[in-house]
Amino acid sequence: MPILYGNRRTYATQMLTVTATAMLVAAGPMSGTMVYAQQANADAEMAMDIDHAKILKDAGVIGVFATYKVNPDYYQRASAERRGGVEEVLAVVDAHKSKVRVDAYLTRGLSSESDFMLRVHAYDLEAAQNFMTDFLETRFGMHTEVTETLTGITKPLNYVTKEDSPDMNAALSSASYSDEEPKYSIVVPIEKDAEWWNMSHEERLSHMEVHTAPTLEFLVNVKRKLYHSTGLDDVDFITYFETADLNAFNNLAVSLMEVPENLYHEQWGEPTILSTIQPIENVVATLSALK
Amino acid sequence: MPILYGNRRTYATQMLTVTATAMLVAAGPMSGTMVYAQQANADAEMAMDIDHAKILKDAGVIGVFATYKVNPDYYQRASAERRGGVEEVLAVVDAHKSKVRVDAYLTRGLSSESDFMLRVHAYDLEAAQNFMTDFLETRFGMHTEVTETLTGITKPLNYVTKEDSPDMNAALSSASYSDEEPKYSIVVPIEKDAEWWNMSHEERLSHMEVHTAPTLEFLVNVKRKLYHSTGLDDVDFITYFETADLNAFNNLAVSLMEVPENLYHEQWGEPTILSTIQPIENVVATLSALK
Amino acid sequence: MPILYGNRRTYATQMLTVTATAMLVAAGPMSGTMVYAQQANADAEMAMDIDHAKILKDAGVIGVFATYKVNPDYYQRASAERRGGVEEVLAVVDAHKSKVRVDAYLTRGLSSESDFMLRVHAYDLEAAQNFMTDFLETRFGMHTEVTETLTGITKPLNYVTKEDSPDMNAALSSASYSDEEPKYSIVVPIEKDAEWWNMSHEERLSHMEVHTAPTLEFLVNVKRKLYHSTGLDDVDFITYFETADLNAFNNLAVSLMEVPENLYHEQWGEPTILSTIQPIENVVATLSALK
Amino acid sequence: MPILYGNRRTYATQMLTVTATAMLVAAGPMSGTMVYAQQANADAEMAMDIDHAKILKDAGVIGVFATYKVNPDYYQRASAERRGGVEEVLAVVDAHKSKVRVDAYLTRGLSSESDFMLRVHAYDLEAAQNFMTDFLETRFGMHTEVTETLTGITKPLNYVTKEDSPDMNAALSSASYSDEEPKYSIVVPIEKDAEWWNMSHEERLSHMEVHTAPTLEFLVNVKRKLYHSTGLDDVDFITYFETADLNAFNNLAVSLMEVPENLYHEQWGEPTILSTIQPIENVVATLSALK
Amino acid sequence: MPILYGNRRTYATQMLTVTATAMLVAAGPMSGTMVYAQQANADAEMAMDIDHAKILKDAGVIGVFATYKVNPDYYQRASAERRGGVEEVLAVVDAHKSKVRVDAYLTRGLSSESDFMLRVHAYDLEAAQNFMTDFLETRFGMHTEVTETLTGITKPLNYVTKEDSPDMNAALSSASYSDEEPKYSIVVPIEKDAEWWNMSHEERLSHMEVHTAPTLEFLVNVKRKLYHSTGLDDVDFITYFETADLNAFNNLAVSLMEVPENLYHEQWGEPTILSTIQPIENVVATLSALK
Repeated sequence: MPILYGNRRTYATQMLTVTATAMLVAAGPMSGTMVYAQQANADAEMAMDIDHAKILKDAGVIGVFATYKVNPDYYQRASAERRGGVEEVLAVVDAHKSKVRVDAYLTRGLSSESDFMLRVHAYDLEAAQNFMTDFLETRFGMHTEVTETLTGITKPLNYVTKEDSPDMNAALSSASYSDEEPKYSIVVPIEKDAEWWNMSHEERLSHMEVHTAPTLEFLVNVKRKLYHSTGLDDVDFITYFETADLNAFNNLAVSLMEVPENLYHEQWGEPTILSTIQPIENVVATLSALK
Repeated sequence: MPILYGNRRTYATQMLTVTATAMLVAAGPMSGTMVYAQQANADAEMAMDIDHAKILKDAGVIGVFATYKVNPDYYQRASAERRGGVEEVLAVVDAHKSKVRVDAYLTRGLSSESDFMLRVHAYDLEAAQNFMTDFLETRFGMHTEVTETLTGITKPLNYVTKEDSPDMNAALSSASYSDEEPKYSIVVPIEKDAEWWNMSHEERLSHMEVHTAPTLEFLVNVKRKLYHSTGLDDVDFITYFETADLNAFNNLAVSLMEVPENLYHEQWGEPTILSTIQPIENVVATLSALK
Repeated sequence: MPILYGNRRTYATQMLTVTATAMLVAAGPMSGTMVYAQQANADAEMAMDIDHAKILKDAGVIGVFATYKVNPDYYQRASAERRGGVEEVLAVVDAHKSKVRVDAYLTRGLSSESDFMLRVHAYDLEAAQNFMTDFLETRFGMHTEVTETLTGITKPLNYVTKEDSPDMNAALSSASYSDEEPKYSIVVPIEKDAEWWNMSHEERLSHMEVHTAPTLEFLVNVKRKLYHSTGLDDVDFITYFETADLNAFNNLAVSLMEVPENLYHEQWGEPTILSTIQPIENVVATLSALK
Repeated sequence: MPILYGNRRTYATQMLTVTATAMLVAAGPMSGTMVYAQQANADAEMAMDIDHAKILKDAGVIGVFATYKVNPDYYQRASAERRGGVEEVLAVVDAHKSKVRVDAYLTRGLSSESDFMLRVHAYDLEAAQNFMTDFLETRFGMHTEVTETLTGITKPLNYVTKEDSPDMNAALSSASYSDEEPKYSIVVPIEKDAEWWNMSHEERLSHMEVHTAPTLEFLVNVKRKLYHSTGLDDVDFITYFETADLNAFNNLAVSLMEVPENLYHEQWGEPTILSTIQPIENVVATLSALK
Repeated sequence: MPILYGNRRTYATQMLTVTATAMLVAAGPMSGTMVYAQQANADAEMAMDIDHAKILKDAGVIGVFATYKVNPDYYQRASAERRGGVEEVLAVVDAHKSKVRVDAYLTRGLSSESDFMLRVHAYDLEAAQNFMTDFLETRFGMHTEVTETLTGITKPLNYVTKEDSPDMNAALSSASYSDEEPKYSIVVPIEKDAEWWNMSHEERLSHMEVHTAPTLEFLVNVKRKLYHSTGLDDVDFITYFETADLNAFNNLAVSLMEVPENLYHEQWGEPTILSTIQPIENVVATLSALK
């Protein structure tokens, strides 16, 4: 499908044509979206663009994880319309790329709750919401149902810091991911109980050190990222993992079960979201039955 | 969309035109609604109008929080009909404004349960119900599903009062919100357990003082409001927050987790409703794919 | 809408006309219902009619509480058909009035689970089921979904009796409802835990005395009625309240939380069903968008 | 409706006619079902037929309880088609009667989860599944949704036996049902907790004796039957009751709450399925709006 | 239905014809699927094919269990289209057979959650996902809803090993399945609590020995297989059983309840998935109302 990989100019042109048609045939407010998309594009050129690598490392970044299920009726649509839907999704991602970083994941076949997941990063929750609102207005998004949403914010390390826990902190940087490119992602929302939160920071720190120790050996084949959600959502943390080795990940997860800190969990997973990491064009094309 | 900001006469005229059309094309009982709306309008002029600022401060005020999801089929409707839906919502809000204060919030993209939330204040629950019944009869409301409803009543402070807790009471008025205009709202329903309710008032008071202390520093960047729901709903309290700083709010929420009073919660959140605060015309227009 | 208040003969005539039409246009088995309705009517004349006031006071009476949600597609029907639906509901209520007492409540706007509630009393569960089966066959009922059903049976006082608890029993009759006509109803299903049921009757009696004491002051502004459900449903009791003063009711509910008996609840509410008390013709007409 | 009570030959003839029509008009694979039904009928003549009375007393019998809800769209079908649906159900029951005993119950109006329940007995789970698969293929079944399924197997008494508990065992046979024909059925699934299963058989036996004692007085007005489900389903037991006296049944249920054995329940009911016992032709005709 | 058993060449030819037609009439992207299917077929010839017997014994194998419900609208489709759906499913299974082993189970009539279950084995989760994605794109899959998904990985014995528990390990191999061909399958997902995971390996080993002892006698009539899911899903283990004797299985399950290890279960079943083991062509044909 060259359209998905053609350079932006060609693509844009093709898109506008499709859009024109859309305005005639589409059972939806596509024209509106497109105008908005182009508008946003324009704004983007004027605004200060985000750095898509840096935003993954910064603190104070909002992360929204959303899972979606495609409505069966979507497959009754003509393939031309579904193709148009893929284009609109790419156009919306492009229109917001100066303010939002979007990562896509295919959950179909691995979950009964969803077909795909989007992970959206922005410095401002409103920017993430604007993207998601436009996404749901595309002819593809319009045929999806949001089945789960998790919102969190990134923060500096709060337990195993250079100051409070120098050795463990050093150990964490002693090894880094060296396995092949991660193919799989696992998202595990976590809620601690009131007893946990009523412990002193020192008690929790020592628990976290015991929690961290057995995970060190997995630094080489499992990547992790943490988001804080207390008050923003019904969980306290969103833990995000990437790996190419599910057997190693299962061992890591077991080691996290075997420490006392695990006694203070009100929720661990539920849902545990397992998926394959894929470019958004693949995810949307696959779910549009266009691959 | 001038129609949204035009003066009432123009607007009314335009509306009636639309309505006339509606009576021909609408797949719904629009004419009825309109008549009712105008009726209510008339009554309003005769009744004693509520003060929309005062009602937020009074005790004995009913607050109903309702979240809604827009049915996908709505987007299959012609944009003219969707535009008519927006107008009908504004007409209904206007028709009831003498008895009911309505605030709107966009939850789309931040929740899998809903697309928007309405917060309705009235001195009489029946007045709130009348508004919501008319709202659901508009061509927009007719395409929404109510996904959550929380009802509470406002009361005078019942723990940290001038009499029982003079210092803490003073501390609460020592600082006030000074951050930029709040952009976000968070609603957290709360249910206490039977052990909590079986403590003496004094025990609960001292718990509430410990609970309040760490929240003082957030008076400058988080606004709060409390509603009592025991017996009116399946929770005991509805806590409502507004902020422009989600990082500060997350810190406030964590501080609320770290006190003993948190050991007596049967429910905290579930759902935690995070949203952006917006004029109802924006919320409805956005969800009608008309922005 | 004279038809709703016209005398029965006129009404019946109009109804038959409507029905005739219905048989041509209705997408449903209306004729069947009507025939049945008239049949039942005939039987009624021969059977011994129930006393609609007495049945609310008798023991051994079955009470069924059912909440319903109106399917959105109903509003796509022509108003004439919806008007016919209202008439059929009234005809069915009338056809069964010799065996069943039906009370109606509007929950729309106050609940995400339902739009209305019916409370049905009969000396025989089968009679209640027959009514509900016919109700669901009307053109209105056919477009509703039952979202909750609670079944219980009335019994003589089993704790605070003249014999076991003379003073408290006297106190209960010392005051009676004196506030304005109740506008609101609250239904609270209750399940006690195994520990409660394993106490001796004496222990439970003393708990119920402590439970009753703080409620005495609310006899003047809150009416109550109790139904027993153990084994008939998944709760032990259905508590039904009527009031015109929701602030007083919230205070009553809090007082019920503050006693030791509350430590033995497996379920209290869930759902708590809050509604306005209205004639069934209003409830159905309102939900048919005909008011 | 003579067709429901006519002798099988007439009935069969009528059915084939209807079927022929069905093959032209039905929006479903009716012909297939009919052929299968007749096939099964043929097999039946060759196989050894089950004894419909004996199968209720034997051990090692599979019992499947399934509740169903009728989809609203069913009522949009022409009454002739609905009548055909009733016939097909009766044909399928007849086609399987040599291998399966089917009892029917009307739950409509008494449950929000379902409209009817089937209790299917067979010596072989596969036979029960074959019946249910064919049932769902009838034009009636095709418009129903299975909302609950409980599977168990009958076994000889395992606690209060002649050997282990002679007196209680004798007491159980000392009285038998003497009230009028049962009109109501109640199904209560039960799950015991791990603590219960970790007691010695002797401890459990003495608990069951204490559990049984207060139930003896209800032998005269409540019939019971027990099915074992551990590992076959998510409950341990399915308890089935029949009675004509719901007040007595409520008293029996309360007595079952008041014994220590009740302290070891993980689940008791949820759902408690209350229904009226009726011939399957009545149940299906009533739910087809043909009564 | 010879087509289901005809040799692959004939079958393929017939299929292509059907497909050609499909491309004209099908309300779906069938052509795409077919092309993909043939593609995959081609790849298969080049890739190293999996051994369908060996993959059931290997460690490090991914097992995905998915249950599905067929949407009622499927039965409104012409039988020719449904027949085409069966063929497409077989084509997809065939296209992936070099990378994936698929086993099918009929749950209809035994579960309210699903109509059938697929158990998919692959050395790579991505291969399993590819199969399931294609399966859902067939005209049959397109009319199903995934209702449950469980993912696990096989591992070498981790408690009762030759080294740690020689006698019990020997006992496990002392007897093997000798009953008639299993007709039934039971899947029981299991989650252990934090207390369990916080025990030493030795404590858990001794618990597992006590757990294993009573199960030895059932080696002859119940087959078992274990999958590890911690971190991959919201359970820790997926236990899979096959048997021809449900009474024996119920006894085995009870024996698993009666040991201390059962005190550490957070989840046991929920869902317990009971089904009949059948060739996929039978499962799909039966659910397509083509048997």
